[in-house]
Amino acid sequence: MAKQVRAQLVGATGYGGLGILELLLGHPQFEVTALIARDDAGRRIDHVYPHLTGRCEAIVQAPVEDAIGRDCDVVIFATPDRVSQQYAKDLVRRGVRFIDYSGDFRFASTADYARYAERHPSIGDTTHGAAALLARSAYGVSELNAAAIAAAPVVGNPGCFAVGIVLGMAPLYHDGLVEGGLVIVDGLTGSSGAGKKPAPLQHFSHLNANVVPYRVLNHQHVVEAEFTLGRLGQAAGATVDFVPHLLGTTRGILNTMHATLTRPVPRAALLARYREFFAGHPFVRVLDDPPTLKGTLGSNYIDLSLFTAPGDRRVVVMSSIDNLMKGQSGSAMQNLNIMFGLPQTAGLERGPLYP
Amino acid sequence: MAKQVRAQLVGATGYGGLGILELLLGHPQFEVTALIARDDAGRRIDHVYPHLTGRCEAIVQAPVEDAIGRDCDVVIFATPDRVSQQYAKDLVRRGVRFIDYSGDFRFASTADYARYAERHPSIGDTTHGAAALLARSAYGVSELNAAAIAAAPVVGNPGCFAVGIVLGMAPLYHDGLVEGGLVIVDGLTGSSGAGKKPAPLQHFSHLNANVVPYRVLNHQHVVEAEFTLGRLGQAAGATVDFVPHLLGTTRGILNTMHATLTRPVPRAALLARYREFFAGHPFVRVLDDPPTLKGTLGSNYIDLSLFTAPGDRRVVVMSSIDNLMKGQSGSAMQNLNIMFGLPQTAGLERGPLYP
Amino acid sequence: MAKQVRAQLVGATGYGGLGILELLLGHPQFEVTALIARDDAGRRIDHVYPHLTGRCEAIVQAPVEDAIGRDCDVVIFATPDRVSQQYAKDLVRRGVRFIDYSGDFRFASTADYARYAERHPSIGDTTHGAAALLARSAYGVSELNAAAIAAAPVVGNPGCFAVGIVLGMAPLYHDGLVEGGLVIVDGLTGSSGAGKKPAPLQHFSHLNANVVPYRVLNHQHVVEAEFTLGRLGQAAGATVDFVPHLLGTTRGILNTMHATLTRPVPRAALLARYREFFAGHPFVRVLDDPPTLKGTLGSNYIDLSLFTAPGDRRVVVMSSIDNLMKGQSGSAMQNLNIMFGLPQTAGLERGPLYP
Amino acid sequence: MAKQVRAQLVGATGYGGLGILELLLGHPQFEVTALIARDDAGRRIDHVYPHLTGRCEAIVQAPVEDAIGRDCDVVIFATPDRVSQQYAKDLVRRGVRFIDYSGDFRFASTADYARYAERHPSIGDTTHGAAALLARSAYGVSELNAAAIAAAPVVGNPGCFAVGIVLGMAPLYHDGLVEGGLVIVDGLTGSSGAGKKPAPLQHFSHLNANVVPYRVLNHQHVVEAEFTLGRLGQAAGATVDFVPHLLGTTRGILNTMHATLTRPVPRAALLARYREFFAGHPFVRVLDDPPTLKGTLGSNYIDLSLFTAPGDRRVVVMSSIDNLMKGQSGSAMQNLNIMFGLPQTAGLERGPLYP
Repeated sequence: MAKQVRAQLVGATGYGGLGILELLLGHPQFEVTALIARDDAGRRIDHVYPHLTGRCEAIVQAPVEDAIGRDCDVVIFATPDRVSQQYAKDLVRRGVRFIDYSGDFRFASTADYARYAERHPSIGDTTHGAAALLARSAYGVSELNAAAIAAAPVVGNPGCFAVGIVLGMAPLYHDGLVEGGLVIVDGLTGSSGAGKKPAPLQHFSHLNANVVPYRVLNHQHVVEAEFTLGRLGQAAGATVDFVPHLLGTTRGILNTMHATLTRPVPRAALLARYREFFAGHPFVRVLDDPPTLKGTLGSNYIDLSLFTAPGDRRVVVMSSIDNLMKGQSGSAMQNLNIMFGLPQTAGLERGPLYP
Repeated sequence: MAKQVRAQLVGATGYGGLGILELLLGHPQFEVTALIARDDAGRRIDHVYPHLTGRCEAIVQAPVEDAIGRDCDVVIFATPDRVSQQYAKDLVRRGVRFIDYSGDFRFASTADYARYAERHPSIGDTTHGAAALLARSAYGVSELNAAAIAAAPVVGNPGCFAVGIVLGMAPLYHDGLVEGGLVIVDGLTGSSGAGKKPAPLQHFSHLNANVVPYRVLNHQHVVEAEFTLGRLGQAAGATVDFVPHLLGTTRGILNTMHATLTRPVPRAALLARYREFFAGHPFVRVLDDPPTLKGTLGSNYIDLSLFTAPGDRRVVVMSSIDNLMKGQSGSAMQNLNIMFGLPQTAGLERGPLYP
Repeated sequence: MAKQVRAQLVGATGYGGLGILELLLGHPQFEVTALIARDDAGRRIDHVYPHLTGRCEAIVQAPVEDAIGRDCDVVIFATPDRVSQQYAKDLVRRGVRFIDYSGDFRFASTADYARYAERHPSIGDTTHGAAALLARSAYGVSELNAAAIAAAPVVGNPGCFAVGIVLGMAPLYHDGLVEGGLVIVDGLTGSSGAGKKPAPLQHFSHLNANVVPYRVLNHQHVVEAEFTLGRLGQAAGATVDFVPHLLGTTRGILNTMHATLTRPVPRAALLARYREFFAGHPFVRVLDDPPTLKGTLGSNYIDLSLFTAPGDRRVVVMSSIDNLMKGQSGSAMQNLNIMFGLPQTAGLERGPLYP
Repeated sequence: MAKQVRAQLVGATGYGGLGILELLLGHPQFEVTALIARDDAGRRIDHVYPHLTGRCEAIVQAPVEDAIGRDCDVVIFATPDRVSQQYAKDLVRRGVRFIDYSGDFRFASTADYARYAERHPSIGDTTHGAAALLARSAYGVSELNAAAIAAAPVVGNPGCFAVGIVLGMAPLYHDGLVEGGLVIVDGLTGSSGAGKKPAPLQHFSHLNANVVPYRVLNHQHVVEAEFTLGRLGQAAGATVDFVPHLLGTTRGILNTMHATLTRPVPRAALLARYREFFAGHPFVRVLDDPPTLKGTLGSNYIDLSLFTAPGDRRVVVMSSIDNLMKGQSGSAMQNLNIMFGLPQTAGLERGPLYP
């Protein structure tokens, strides 16, 4: 049986590209037509990543411009910020849909984008290169925006920290329960979110057995979380005080989130509301016990739980995801399924790897 | 479509039971009819292992005796030594095939078994409880014994270290190339081979950032490796000097094996011979570079490579496996596929998790 | 030169006992007269802990009752809760001072103790066995209570999490700057705080590469932190919302603490105030950058830093300690120095082990 | 009291420089007069390494040529290969002794050096820049060459792997017990031996939970081990088949070494011989049980043990060191003590950090 969707992958040799490649290789309906990347162009992908031996022998192609979007139904940009926006207008004009891993299409307006771009450590110019498309793009938190994702020509895949914060706090913001719209988040992340490029902070001898807080109260993923949570249901804006901590582990993000409720709600009622809110969403698991980092490792699940302090006014919500799956390629695969009318779980059946 | 094979799992709540359960849940032809275990009987398996939430809600049943083998085509014993041999005769009499994870059915004779049992740290009585079945059982190194496995009523799944040693050295022993039949093996293993029971050697604070050699020249897995290698093709016996090292990591076994060749053979010729020897075996990958532990993580692959010293008389062979997959449940699944005439790769398509 | 102080160590074979033993062995003025413990009594301590080979060959003695306090100037109880209070009256009567690692003497009144004991997972009876001594004991956060520690017959060594929270927040509570007296703390800890006894949560295969939140909003160390912070200077009570997270690493505690200030104070002013507050305290380092877990590993330092959100009303304070040093045996050594009129740094010169 | 020896440190900002700096800071007789390095020149060393806060505020100086050897009794070159040989003649002429961390002065002749240099991955030119000094230099394995080290103007500090192999096998080679002079070594090393420079092999996401064999049968440290072992006592040459394995841990080297004896010797006799051979050497510990990686962590110990196969002809020797201590800066400190007539243990009293 012929595969249904022909996908081209740009930025194929980073961890983001690797993640979606492996999902697409195991997907019953997707076919990968080209691996495109600046790094390692000309090499076989299984020489770049030896663990792919016997699974894929495709040769990485250089990003010659007219190659982008040729001979495919969808382009997946697993590229840094400000790459996809260069190709966006042309692709949309030609009717080729695309999904982008960076912040390029996570925002609905140039004003929103500018606030994000200012915060980003490696974006200088905050002008968007395809401003007209922002209003037509969908923000790819699958559980909140499935209808928009299904219809949009462009999907902005969410930031890894944002996925855990947004889904973890969505029911409370939606119901207008967050006092002052303020949530305090301590985020714990493995190293792989920083990609494969060697750097001092990801140097093994430095990071092993370490915890390194960084970009304290100044991480760019907060911007999309604030916009998203602050506009849900009865929410009236959101402020996220966010402290990311880099851990000496490879995969996973665990966010611990603290808020004050506008009125007392017992824990049991909150858990019930969460289960109702996420009913029918196969990748959201609301647990009685605190989620663990390894409980979602290698899978597309997001595990949630919550607790209240005595008096039921202060609440702690915790979320666990694999940052390279639900936090990146897993969400992308889920969004691609939605874009092409396939079951959300297609190609994403893999469970957590434990122990 | 109805599932083809109905499997009962005994010892369901250890890591071995967990591993095969997860493979069976994702397998297109197998159905799990019962989870049986002494520990945690009466609990839902997803309460024992919360990462299974949403994947399996079966209740663990106590090993009431007449439950074993009831209402199934095959029994999988993920149990310690000397459990399955108690049920063996009865099962075979009733025509129920089974596979066993322990050393109970890895040996072709009581003499061989006794040598193993003497070496085993927790076996007191070296008399076999189902001696008559030893000659009818098959040793489950799938790549070497597929025909026997397909036909046997009983399969003895191999020991984790043995898998890597036997497959890594098989071509050299088969061709009679190992001088004196002696191979020196330093084995590196993650903690999970010791199972889920808390113990001083597996205590996190002790093992983390540590390397602990143990059972130096005295590990029981050596016995099956010596019998198997020493009887291959032109081999005339085998001696394995084996030093296991416990590493501060969870999964994986990397064996580094040293032998002297009976005559000089260049590296390229040896690599070619390995590729020929394992042609058609989908889980054996012969690499040009040294295998890495993480290169097989979570998958059923065994990665091999080899190097020769100047003069081409001394050779180093390295093998990498996931000890809970190719070293245990993956091999079991592969053997179950062979036993029931299914493709060896069914349910085992999952690639390595990297990074 | 004869050593000045003769110390007896009770509970010598746990991690707490090991830590103080090693500090005492390297201390110029302390002599260890006896190692007493229930576990491993009769064994040489270097057989219990082989890394001590060549450093100490003392034999562990069983806790025969009249041995406690005999032939020494000070007793160090590195024992669980409710052990030292059995010996306390007798020791004080005989003029033998002691320091205790548990919660037995951290509280100034039976009411305070009862609140702690109720919260403790393994204390059933909340009645104190030496209630009359509570008012004469000193809470051993060296930087806050040096005068009391110097004079007291009994010192209650602080809980590991409490050390980092109390010192990290002390300047703000002291100055009455914490709105509502509320601080939200996410604590990250290595495994060694749970001691050497094998347990499911400390099982390597489970904890490695994991993060496990536990006792959410319900950890007993909070009680001493609330009492201490809430009674400092201009403070009017304290509430600590505390979520401990167990990390897959051996040593270290990093607390990230969030509070709202009663009035805006710029970051620079707060940092200056912290440096002033801790001037003359050799183990407190106030850093410009966020502290890291490994920055204090193996040393008695506590590293602090802080950041403010825009508007300077919300503040994040971070503290890093080695949980077995400043969080336990290092603080005990520092307190012993204070108790016996020695320089606080004696025997504690060891710097962090990096990388 | 004035410090006795004034030391200048070149290459101060790498892990090797850091290690010796920390030892010198805690040493009663050494004073550090200058920190010299190309990287980070002009910065305070505690800004380069924040864990040094409060311990050293010296500013790193650029390696202006006439600075080297000025105003000091000894120069410590913690620099890459082929740096110290440029300064060597001038220093010796001026009567300034020096110790070098690289291979520049580990060899007694240009022929020996050339064999090493050919094997080294980053040395192109194998001509030695100070050939005349090779005969006057001492190879710094303290336990074997103390007299030469005490007298030499130049000491070549040994390679990290070589320390463990040479000391582990010295008694057997010395006694002429190694058949064919062949030893097979599987070496396990933490990441820190590769230094602080970010690189793909030391990238956290790649190395964590991994084992990576590298430079199989081709590591340059083998050359000095072969020369040293092959010329001891009754030895007649040595061949070392060496396979280094990079582990996902930061510190430590554990070598497992296999040899055939020329005649049967029981284990007990070998252990006794080892204890006799190393009597009086405070850093060598011969254990009954296998050494562990963490048993020497942070200390200058080398832990050894050995086992024999049935028949007592084949032997396994294991050695454990901290690669940055006994494998590098600890040995350097020990050699500096010897060079200046101080007790070998001065400044090296720090025990292993466990757990």
